[in-house]
Amino acid sequence: MLVVKKFGGTSVGSPERILNVARRCVEDYRKGYDVVVVLSAMGKTTDELIKLAHTVNNRPPKRELDMLMTTGEQVSVAMMAIAMDAMGVRAVSLNAFQVAMHTTSKYGSARLKRIDTDRIMHELEDRKIVLVTGFQGVNKYDDLTTLGRGGSDTTAVALAAALHADACEIYTDVDGVYTADPRHVPTARKLKEITYDEMLELATLGAGVLHNRSVEMAKKYGVVLVVRSSLNLSEGTVVKENAKMERMLISGVAVDKDADRISVIGLKDQPGVAFRLFDVLAKANVNVDMILQSIGRDGTKDISFTCSNGDMDDAVRAIEANRERLQYKEINFNEDVAKVSIVGAGMMTNPGVAAKMFEALYNEDININMISTSEIRVTVLIDEKDADRAANAVHDAFGLAE
Amino acid sequence: MLVVKKFGGTSVGSPERILNVARRCVEDYRKGYDVVVVLSAMGKTTDELIKLAHTVNNRPPKRELDMLMTTGEQVSVAMMAIAMDAMGVRAVSLNAFQVAMHTTSKYGSARLKRIDTDRIMHELEDRKIVLVTGFQGVNKYDDLTTLGRGGSDTTAVALAAALHADACEIYTDVDGVYTADPRHVPTARKLKEITYDEMLELATLGAGVLHNRSVEMAKKYGVVLVVRSSLNLSEGTVVKENAKMERMLISGVAVDKDADRISVIGLKDQPGVAFRLFDVLAKANVNVDMILQSIGRDGTKDISFTCSNGDMDDAVRAIEANRERLQYKEINFNEDVAKVSIVGAGMMTNPGVAAKMFEALYNEDININMISTSEIRVTVLIDEKDADRAANAVHDAFGLAE
Repeated sequence: MLVVKKFGGTSVGSPERILNVARRCVEDYRKGYDVVVVLSAMGKTTDELIKLAHTVNNRPPKRELDMLMTTGEQVSVAMMAIAMDAMGVRAVSLNAFQVAMHTTSKYGSARLKRIDTDRIMHELEDRKIVLVTGFQGVNKYDDLTTLGRGGSDTTAVALAAALHADACEIYTDVDGVYTADPRHVPTARKLKEITYDEMLELATLGAGVLHNRSVEMAKKYGVVLVVRSSLNLSEGTVVKENAKMERMLISGVAVDKDADRISVIGLKDQPGVAFRLFDVLAKANVNVDMILQSIGRDGTKDISFTCSNGDMDDAVRAIEANRERLQYKEINFNEDVAKVSIVGAGMMTNPGVAAKMFEALYNEDININMISTSEIRVTVLIDEKDADRAANAVHDAFGLAE
Repeated sequence: MLVVKKFGGTSVGSPERILNVARRCVEDYRKGYDVVVVLSAMGKTTDELIKLAHTVNNRPPKRELDMLMTTGEQVSVAMMAIAMDAMGVRAVSLNAFQVAMHTTSKYGSARLKRIDTDRIMHELEDRKIVLVTGFQGVNKYDDLTTLGRGGSDTTAVALAAALHADACEIYTDVDGVYTADPRHVPTARKLKEITYDEMLELATLGAGVLHNRSVEMAKKYGVVLVVRSSLNLSEGTVVKENAKMERMLISGVAVDKDADRISVIGLKDQPGVAFRLFDVLAKANVNVDMILQSIGRDGTKDISFTCSNGDMDDAVRAIEANRERLQYKEINFNEDVAKVSIVGAGMMTNPGVAAKMFEALYNEDININMISTSEIRVTVLIDEKDADRAANAVHDAFGLAE
């Protein structure tokens, strides 16, 4: 039995927590498991290092920022090995050079290309717990790189794939994947299992337990993921290809309040209009989410889209600055909107899922602004004030609490 | 012109100081020099990391402690590269893996074996300032090691030797090597030049500007050292083989107050006695400095020796625990002693140097406890309260103030 365990920055944020994580890993080791542990930097270390860099340079060069940041995980793995030694267990820490973790060249957001497993296998055969720095790699220039947001999850999944691990356990501050956010939907229930695709949709929708790239990679290589709490021993949620659907149409309801709606009214109803609008937004670095285009009428049409709160000002400014090129009548926007989504592989083979969601919202007298769907997801944009009520109503309508 | 510059932890202890060091290096770079900079960890980082390790383990394993500590210099070189980038200069930071710095296997006190110069030469040809982590290396297991006390000085000298640098500048918080400690001998004067051997004797005696290993290595490879201040632009002291002696008998007076004297009285006057005593002390990890043995009388003899303050308790305990094996009458010790030494290559060819020193002490009515000499050094052990007075008297007697 070979397990890869990943613990985030909060889980190793203090000496006490490091000792706590060490104990959990040592337990599995003493059962005879081969244990590989991937760690993030302690607590807020990465943010602090970035802040430190900015004390000498407003725009730190990315290669050097990676060189700086990668020290964070090295501190974590060394500390963990030192803690395990105190428990009488042989452990060895390895950084990106020692593993080696080969990535693409792009500093700050490199992608894993290949992982050498010789050193790790050798240490495991020697009955050591192997501690690996998450989030980092080495590129073809022999320089340190970082993998960007959620990078340690990706490291763990990639390692599990390369080592043909029996499971990849991702430890977080929640104890699994829920049918909805328990803070807002009191009847929310923890899922035993979920498919990769469902997890992907939930991740995109801000349920935020796992990072998308790591789920994509797990799906690609068939790595069984287990999302567990680092604070308690409850069983967690298993993410795998053939998750049992527990005879439910949908797996969960996700709410994302970090959404603003912008509508561009009175655009010319002719080819190239949408291209020009989203070209302007792309150049302004605005990440567009839902898009809705009205049917043309009287030679004009309207385009509405959503973006995150942080992007809205840039979006409005960019559109207004290009008034001449875009030729629209007016723009309006609404910051007080939220996205509510249902996700479930079950809806692929069950017609009427969307209708059931809309009915639940209608029964609560909640108005729908926009609708967007994928194969296994239905998302509606509604007023932010209605978001929690909508989530509860939909959660109940699909019987998720049972 | 290729220069290797080494800055210690204090010199890079804050963002302001890092920017200050960056400016100094960039100045030389803009003159067209090839500049390689060796850095220690920022401020007290290394001590803090060791303290952190002890929060989870009273006896941290050395391999992992090195893995932990080596992050300190990596932060320094990355920060320096980021600072230089802000000045519009291309710089690249390299850690022990990237250089690579090959060392022996011993964690915590490894020795440099070989330095690959390819990467550094390549970056210099690309007109970059090259920033190298001091104090660290990689052993044959591909594991990080540290070089022990003064390790960054050794890194700098070894790099200067490997790169055939024109000079190796060691920046410290003093602006050179003085004829005596200016804090206690007001007439002390900065030396323009000094030989390796003199520097070695001074380093051993606690003048403490340069670490012994780095001076030994500089001597071996003929690396010209320059000891300079990181705080001002004064010229510093050049350490080289054929330093001009400025027509002086001696180069300096050193005082070391970190000395205790222990006397073992009434040992049997027979072979093997000294061996047994110092064997006991070696096993107790006591570093013995001066040794004096009385001539046998009435079938017994006395042995006195000095050690540092920190070792005295261990030494006394070890001797008492081995009373049966060592067969002595009693031991006594004195913590209030100090060593005063004169150092100078000139004394090799000038008889009467020691006598002149003793005369100066006699004139001040200072009693000498023990005497020890080397080819270019005379050391006396005296009461600690007399130390500064003795240093001034000797300094004057040899005309060092002129």
